[in-house]
Parts: sequence; structure tokens; C-alpha cells
Amino acid sequence: MPNWLLPESIADVLPSEARKIEELRRLMLDTFRLYGYELVMPPLLEYVESLLAGGGQDTDLKTFKVVDQLSGRLLGLRPDMTTQVARIDAHLLNRDSVTRLCYAGSVLHTRPSGLHATREPLQIGAEIYGHAGLEADAEIQELALATLALAGFAEPRLDLSHVGVLRALLAEDPAAKRDEAQLYDLLRAKDIPGLEVITQSYAPVTRNALLALPNLYGDCDMLAHAREVLPPLPGITRALAELAALCGSALGRAQVAIDLADLRGYQYESGAMFALYVPGLPNAVARGGRYDHVGEAFGRARPATGFSLDLRELARLLPTAGRKHSIRAPWGNAPELRAKIAELRKAGEVVIQSFPGHDNVQDEFECDRVLVLEDGNWILKNLG
Amino acid sequence: MPNWLLPESIADVLPSEARKIEELRRLMLDTFRLYGYELVMPPLLEYVESLLAGGGQDTDLKTFKVVDQLSGRLLGLRPDMTTQVARIDAHLLNRDSVTRLCYAGSVLHTRPSGLHATREPLQIGAEIYGHAGLEADAEIQELALATLALAGFAEPRLDLSHVGVLRALLAEDPAAKRDEAQLYDLLRAKDIPGLEVITQSYAPVTRNALLALPNLYGDCDMLAHAREVLPPLPGITRALAELAALCGSALGRAQVAIDLADLRGYQYESGAMFALYVPGLPNAVARGGRYDHVGEAFGRARPATGFSLDLRELARLLPTAGRKHSIRAPWGNAPELRAKIAELRKAGEVVIQSFPGHDNVQDEFECDRVLVLEDGNWILKNLG
Repeated sequence: MPNWLLPESIADVLPSEARKIEELRRLMLDTFRLYGYELVMPPLLEYVESLLAGGGQDTDLKTFKVVDQLSGRLLGLRPDMTTQVARIDAHLLNRDSVTRLCYAGSVLHTRPSGLHATREPLQIGAEIYGHAGLEADAEIQELALATLALAGFAEPRLDLSHVGVLRALLAEDPAAKRDEAQLYDLLRAKDIPGLEVITQSYAPVTRNALLALPNLYGDCDMLAHAREVLPPLPGITRALAELAALCGSALGRAQVAIDLADLRGYQYESGAMFALYVPGLPNAVARGGRYDHVGEAFGRARPATGFSLDLRELARLLPTAGRKHSIRAPWGNAPELRAKIAELRKAGEVVIQSFPGHDNVQDEFECDRVLVLEDGNWILKNLG
Repeated sequence: MPNWLLPESIADVLPSEARKIEELRRLMLDTFRLYGYELVMPPLLEYVESLLAGGGQDTDLKTFKVVDQLSGRLLGLRPDMTTQVARIDAHLLNRDSVTRLCYAGSVLHTRPSGLHATREPLQIGAEIYGHAGLEADAEIQELALATLALAGFAEPRLDLSHVGVLRALLAEDPAAKRDEAQLYDLLRAKDIPGLEVITQSYAPVTRNALLALPNLYGDCDMLAHAREVLPPLPGITRALAELAALCGSALGRAQVAIDLADLRGYQYESGAMFALYVPGLPNAVARGGRYDHVGEAFGRARPATGFSLDLRELARLLPTAGRKHSIRAPWGNAPELRAKIAELRKAGEVVIQSFPGHDNVQDEFECDRVLVLEDGNWILKNLG
């Protein structure tokens, strides 16, 4: 096998795509900053115990592991950065007040999470620690929407869900609780025949509620219907009230939908969850929600809510920018030539010097002008 | 052991330091772009055969390895990005013309390369492929110097060296050739007693030249002395002529020194090499040189020259920027408040909304103004 082949679901990013990703990365980090989010850079690898704290078996299987030659202990390559940022909030910053953090970096997965998924997403995200109220969830959703709008996605759709609904149902019915993992899969797949089989032995109230969940999808008015269909357990009432409040906050910023069976992240999240969809991609481009228990794994319980997305996937949806106009200049050490080139670059012009005997070919740049010596002066001439 | 501890020589980067790194990263990538370098993003991990192509045993020992579940083959986590970029030039872009590429990303080492070194440097660099002439080396050196100057390092020192000198000496003397690795270590350490012992069995001309190398250090005029002291082998004559030409190009841009015993990168490089030093750091902040044979390992010989540095280390030398002035605003859904906040952020102001019952504390931001409602209008008031 030739040594320039790459492993499956691993890819190089070439210039025009890399430029798009870099610009999107800057735009997003700059937006986070305008909202007061501080940038942190957790490491690519750390002890598996730290990486997997608060995570499920899924995360464990996704994590590449290596032995640390210095300690003999097992290290993991981060499959996700949220746990790392929660660790930074809990132990490094150690503040009592509200902390807003953001990050951007590569993560690695042992297997791709879908047919066309990469094993090296470029994760970018923002998190709020220290505020349990819905204001923090609303701000995170607003920030995610604002970022997508600035990136050029005019009409994102915001899907809201809440882990409290299923949690409350299972807490009431031990038989259903035993099937938690299966129920979660069936609900995600909206598999009603499957749900009909598995729920036969449950209490009728649980069974009816579980069978209703896949159809509890629609705009914010659907919440009134959900209140009638689902049992009035305190956990459910609270979850539906939170969703109604978040609907109100997001109104006018996005097309909002409720999808009570969308439980992606259920094992990890602890409250309201959301997903953002844009035209051109069937899967969510961004996901977020509340995960109050992760800080607890590091010995310091802190309310937490945030969102993240894969920059590479999002950048792919954006149009490729045109090639940037640039200037071709000859090679030379003459002080006048060097001064002229420095002046042009200082003014933001891309100046590419030609080496003797070679042309320049670029994906990103199009030389539309050339620097030539006329009557002792270096001047710019247009290229035909 | 608590699960929030990090492995040795691995660290989180907290807000004020992360901001410096991010700004330096952008400044460097923007400078590369003004010179016509195109950004590429090679993957964090690939087959070890690809990563180690053209590299020595050193590289192998530095590389973390994991088994690929999809192929059963061994993957390596990149210890360096130069080989990857050479692979991209050779096989993905596959151009005959001159190609200028740049990159920025984390690399991982199984062991730190020095006492205070990190195992996760943030490597940034630029490379020219397809031009064998010294113009490419001169441009890379100019680019490295220009980048450091823009970053605020006014007086960098450029140390030049050349693998051709030692290579030519060893090619003439089989006894010396057998000791290549040891000679390399002794020369790097400028260990003259050690060199006196090891060279006893060599031809006198080799012995005298090897003993002279550690003292062949000085400004560009030293090259005339080197021509007298070293044997007039074609390889040596060519190397000294190349160094003289590079001295001429760099004059006026940096304090230039020649150090013929500085052979760091000897195994990897194929021609002129350089190192950049700035006040405050005993080690070189950037290293570069010519490595024409790496493309060959991918089946396509292309002349290559480039440089790279660790952004984290360089950023540490820069002063921490003052906290950015920002605006505190109350939380609320009132359209006028939201419009006012959006307007301020659009103008580049950092606006941090306070959640009910919480203060905000930040490293990066200092709230010097507050948004308050007076007579039905949202206005800014200075904070004492």
C-alpha cells in the first residue's frame, strides 16, 4: 500500500477548503468574544479517567488510548472537549461566579459516527458555568443562532427537547427503567411498532406516554397538546414549562420546533437540549444543552450549559470564496524592489515573488497584476 | 490520584495565555498569506509508514502509536507536520510549479524534548516546494524574520549552518562515516575533548576539520576563515558559498551569525539550515532549512525548504495584553434592550449580560461601563 494513502475517514484539508474553515473559525471565536466568552485550550490527550469522567460507555469506545511512557498510565485522545472545559472551570479557574468559556480544536474518534462522518472533527463550542437558570440556556441558543447567521446561514431551524420527560416517566415505572437503553434507541428512531412491543408489560400510563412521544413534534403550540397527553408528573410539568420559556426567548430568531423524542445526548445531558438544522444537511449542524453533573465528576458541582459543532462539516456547506487577487513580483535583492513589495504587503496586498525559471500556480490566489521596473520605478501593471 | 490532574509535560492553556496564542497564530497565518502561502490542514493521525517516511529513529521514538480498529494497521499521532505537508505537495496538489504552503496545528511527543518542554507543541510553519535555488531559502528566512518582527521581536538573531560540510567530510573518510551519529552528538555539544578522542584514527585532514568545526562560529566574515581551515572539497566549497549568499540576503534584516557545528536537524535536512533566537529564551524559537529528500519518500522528488516554530513557547515570551474593556448589561428579553446590545456588539464592543443573582468575573475582560435604562432609553454609564 503506498505510504501517501490516508486511513479511512481521515482526510487532508486542501487550500480553498482550509481557508473557509479558518475564516469560519475566526468569525465564530470573535462572536463568542463579543458575548464575553473567554478562550481556553485544553490538551489533546490526558488520563482516560479525566476524559471519561461523567461520560458513558459510548465515549469510552470512541476514545483512542495510548500508554504514557512517563507514568505507565493510560492516556486518551480527547473524543470531545466539553468534559475538558468543565474540568478547567471546576479546578483551574475555580470561580464561584458565572464563567463563560469557548474553545476550538480537533477531536479524534476510533470509528466514524456515521457513513460520511470524519474521525477527526474540528470541534468549536461555548459553555456557561455557574448559572442554573434558563437565562443561560437561552443565551447559549442565541449565541449559536447568531454565529450561524453571521456565517451566512440565514434560516436555521432550532429543535428543542428535554431529558426531563423520559427521566420522569422511567422514575415512575421500574419495568420501563430496566429497558432504558432500548427505549432510548427506539425513541430516537421513532420506531412505534418496536415501542408497542417493548411497552406491553409497563403501566398503562407509561405505555401511553412513551407511545405518544414520537408524535409530539411540532411548533411551540404543540406543548399545550403535550401537557394533555403526558401524565402530570412534576418532572414533566417542569420540562414542558422550561421548553415553553425557551420557545419564547428564541421566537423571532429562528424557526423553532419541539421534538420530544429527539434524545441524542440523553445519557450526557441533564435538562433542555437543542439541535440546529440548516438547509443542505439532514443532520443537525450544532447540538447543545444542559449537563449539570459533569463538574460533579471533578468534585465540584456546577450548573453547565453549552453547545458545539464541527467546523469542517459546517464549512463544507459554505460557498468557496473566489480566488484572492494578488500581485506577481520578480525575485531580487534590490532595496527599491524590496521596499515596494513590503509597502504593498503592508497595504494588505498578496505579493508572490517568482523564483527564476518558475511560474507560480495557486488555488487560492489569482495574479491579476505584475510588478515591473519602468524608467527606474517599480510600478504595477494589470495582467490581461 | 484526582481525575483533574494532567499528565506530565501536558497543560491546559487558560484565557489570557490562550488569547495571546490565538492572536499570534492569526498574525503569523496572515503574514504567510501576504507572501502567497496557501493554508493546508493535515490530519492529526495517519499510518506510521507515512508519518515516518524520510524521518529517522528519533521521530519513530517520539511518535505515539495506536491500532486502527478499521484497518488493523498501526497509526501514529503526528510528532511533526513537515512530512505531512511534503506528502500533500507530492500527492494531493501534484503541481510541477513552485508551491508555497503553510500550516498550524498541535503535534504530540511521547517524551518532552527538554526539561521544560511540552509534549504538545503548537506547530506553525511555512514551506516552499519546487525550487532548488537559494532564493527559496532566502525567502523562507525573510518570512520567518518578518513574522517575528511583526510579533514584536525587534532584534532576532539568525544563525546559519549547512549539513553539506559534515556530509562532505564523512564521504571522504570511511572511519569517520562509521561514527556519524556520535560525531553529530559531539559536534552539537561542541565537545572538543570528546572529538579529540574519537578522531584519533581518522585521516589527519578529516580530524583537523572536525576539530575546527566547533570554533567556526561568528559573523559572516568567519566564512573566509572557514575556507582556509576546511579542506577544499566540492561539497564544502558549495556549502560555504551558499552560506555566503544567504548572509548577503539576510543582511540588514537581522544580526546574522554562522555556526558550522549547529547540526540540529542534520538527519532530516539536506542543505542550508537556520535557527532564530530572541532575547529571553536560550533555545532557538524557530528552526528551518532545506529537506529535498522528503518528497522522494513519497515517490516524487521535489526540492523543499521551510521553517517552523512552537506558537505556545513564542507566545509565552510576549507580554500579556491588558484586559479588554467591556460593557455589563442586564438580562432581559425586551426588544429595545436586545437591539441596543446587538448594536453595541456590531460596533465591536464586548457586552456581557448578567444573569439574575450573579456577578461576572473574567480574566480577559474588564467591565468599565454598564448599560442602564433611564427615562425609557438604554444608555451607557461609566463604572467608577
